[in-house]
Amino acid sequence: MATSPHSLLLQNPTHHLPNNSTLKPFNAFPLTSTRFTPSTTDKRLSITCATTTQIQDRPPAQAHSEDRVFNFAAGPAILPENVLKKAQSELYNYRGSGMSVMEMSHRGKEFLSIIQKAESDLRALLEIPDEYAVLFLQGGATTQFAAIPLNLCTPDDPVDFLVTGSWGDKAFKEAQKYSQPKLIWSGKPEKYTKIPSFEDLEQTPDAKYLHICANETIHGVEFKNYPTPKNATGLLVADMSSNFCSKPVDVSKFGVIYAGAQKNVGPSGVTVVIIRKDLIGNAQKTTPVMLDYKIHAENNSLYNTPPCFGIYMCGLVFEDLLEQGGLKEVEKKNKKKAEILYNAIDESNGFFRCPVEKSVRSLMNVPFTLEKSELEAEFVKEAAKEKMVQLKGHRSVGGMRASIYNAMPLAGVETLVAFMKDFQARHA
Amino acid sequence: MATSPHSLLLQNPTHHLPNNSTLKPFNAFPLTSTRFTPSTTDKRLSITCATTTQIQDRPPAQAHSEDRVFNFAAGPAILPENVLKKAQSELYNYRGSGMSVMEMSHRGKEFLSIIQKAESDLRALLEIPDEYAVLFLQGGATTQFAAIPLNLCTPDDPVDFLVTGSWGDKAFKEAQKYSQPKLIWSGKPEKYTKIPSFEDLEQTPDAKYLHICANETIHGVEFKNYPTPKNATGLLVADMSSNFCSKPVDVSKFGVIYAGAQKNVGPSGVTVVIIRKDLIGNAQKTTPVMLDYKIHAENNSLYNTPPCFGIYMCGLVFEDLLEQGGLKEVEKKNKKKAEILYNAIDESNGFFRCPVEKSVRSLMNVPFTLEKSELEAEFVKEAAKEKMVQLKGHRSVGGMRASIYNAMPLAGVETLVAFMKDFQARHA
Repeated sequence: MATSPHSLLLQNPTHHLPNNSTLKPFNAFPLTSTRFTPSTTDKRLSITCATTTQIQDRPPAQAHSEDRVFNFAAGPAILPENVLKKAQSELYNYRGSGMSVMEMSHRGKEFLSIIQKAESDLRALLEIPDEYAVLFLQGGATTQFAAIPLNLCTPDDPVDFLVTGSWGDKAFKEAQKYSQPKLIWSGKPEKYTKIPSFEDLEQTPDAKYLHICANETIHGVEFKNYPTPKNATGLLVADMSSNFCSKPVDVSKFGVIYAGAQKNVGPSGVTVVIIRKDLIGNAQKTTPVMLDYKIHAENNSLYNTPPCFGIYMCGLVFEDLLEQGGLKEVEKKNKKKAEILYNAIDESNGFFRCPVEKSVRSLMNVPFTLEKSELEAEFVKEAAKEKMVQLKGHRSVGGMRASIYNAMPLAGVETLVAFMKDFQARHA
Repeated sequence: MATSPHSLLLQNPTHHLPNNSTLKPFNAFPLTSTRFTPSTTDKRLSITCATTTQIQDRPPAQAHSEDRVFNFAAGPAILPENVLKKAQSELYNYRGSGMSVMEMSHRGKEFLSIIQKAESDLRALLEIPDEYAVLFLQGGATTQFAAIPLNLCTPDDPVDFLVTGSWGDKAFKEAQKYSQPKLIWSGKPEKYTKIPSFEDLEQTPDAKYLHICANETIHGVEFKNYPTPKNATGLLVADMSSNFCSKPVDVSKFGVIYAGAQKNVGPSGVTVVIIRKDLIGNAQKTTPVMLDYKIHAENNSLYNTPPCFGIYMCGLVFEDLLEQGGLKEVEKKNKKKAEILYNAIDESNGFFRCPVEKSVRSLMNVPFTLEKSELEAEFVKEAAKEKMVQLKGHRSVGGMRASIYNAMPLAGVETLVAFMKDFQARHA
């Protein structure tokens, strides 16, 4: 990996320095025998440093420090460096409040301001209409697999599932406890590499909703447009965990959108649910109070103690995405990164292979295999030596997988592609 | 509040400085017109500072910085300063891994090491027997209000509830969805200020368990010993959210202990469940997969993505509690703090009043009122000016409440007591 001039600067907190400062943070210098005599009148200070001093401008937000690895994990996943820096600077004493966000009462004015801004920024990012509630919950998408039918169905209601990967299949199975789900199409016979033509789908007329997983994290299959529900309610429900906020989405096409935060928008432990308000309030009687959308909507996600620090982190990410120009700009960057990587695979003369049909390849999760599968372990190992980690494919499918979420810098993908070409040259 | 000599040092990250360094962190000095010419050979560096320089030794772990407030919130609540400092220092690059804990795959070796050490340290702290599983879950105690009956009962099974405050009452109500709970005693007629004599309790012989809330956060009522279940299973189940790890507990007396982390052991978003292993595996068929203890036990809390950063924070707190000498030492400190505060109330000649019966007063949550209730708002306001915050009582009961969890330093309680005496002198 190329040496970055920003490496030392990024390794240490720079947040107390003025913006654009050319100063190196003090604690970047290993200290030798420096001692001071306490004084309340000293105006000058001389410091002896044992190291060389390379002074650089502050790096741009998207830069990548040599001290950091390129983390291709599928989730929890890479977060924007500037967001982490900000969180670090505020961790001990949040903006003069005298406490960490982790210590704040969830009903105090500081945290209320944090959660309200997070919601407001997310609404701006996705242009969420007023008739939708935004909930910050716990338990991951897996909890929603139960909450969705519990809130939208009776146990006798049919619902339709279009299953394009493992996560959609898990949602389908959990829904069997609380509704009568029908598998109207499954990509399993073709190892989850396709999305069907929507016209040919046989939807159930009295289904309460049609469920999809917008992006399958394990199989790398992503909906590029969405089926129109041909059921009585017209409701489309989508698990968007692994492509949430990676591109613009017309929220008004959905009844419910839900997403675990730990791919694109924050740490694990926060689940975002965007739900049309008229769908709230009909939970089955045996719904646990914590899975009842009505409870959370009426209490603005503060019925019980929410995952405060996680919500704060999501808020910082939303702010960062807005500062990048919003989701249209973010999508452009994601398309460019994905294009470079898929091209490298497709132009390798079969040395690397991506099993997913081209038209539905994910912008977020890129699974690939080696023609010589015996080299895959070596590939992952060598990449790790070059500080590209978590490239091993999911244990259920094998091969490799590069997750290139919003926060993965272009340099990460370029470094990976350069490594792939080098690896091929050495092993072809 | 007395001026602390540690104030400036604590305000800024000091983690890169050698231990016991007498150096002030560089970024504590407001910078003026300081500029450097880049050089790779400079060995010396001169810095102009615009402020006075007061140099102090690093404070001990339990010290309290003037920049921080004394946070008496009931939860999320104060965390140990040294734990926050450590988390801050590791937030951007965890121990050379090149990533934040928030970015780590929950199946990678770094996080596995974190969660395994957290469990192992908690087992050491509470001397948890091998026949108990330790689970790190999401959703707070409120989710467990449903999970407990769903895992331990059929819908027709009777269970006994001894309700000593609002949280026990909420658990009782949620259990009605999944079992036949019986309220064998309620403190409500006496405004939740008492715990009954255990001999007089009429327990249900075929009850599946007896449920208590070991410490009622809102009402400040704490069990000092525990009732013996006189039911067929002999099972006692306890919500220990607000006194978890505040004192030693004989885990073997319980079937299940559960606790939200956000009082004594970490940030919100993590729930610890300690359950005897033979009780696992009988969940009702409609139990959401995320509420099924079997799923979590079989997968070592990694069935789906756990709240990784929260678990890491809990681990740091467990480590800190062990370093303090374990829960016996922690209990001593908590008893001393509580004694000082309750004495101040009791010796105020009725100016301050605690409604809770003396023998069951909580070591953690100290509710009190003013004889002249019209002064309560003023008390809270003046205290906040003195950097003692979140002293307002729960909205359901009014008055004041000082939560003095493990991480509240003795100095916090002493400062509060001094303020109370001063306030009384001015308003008696």
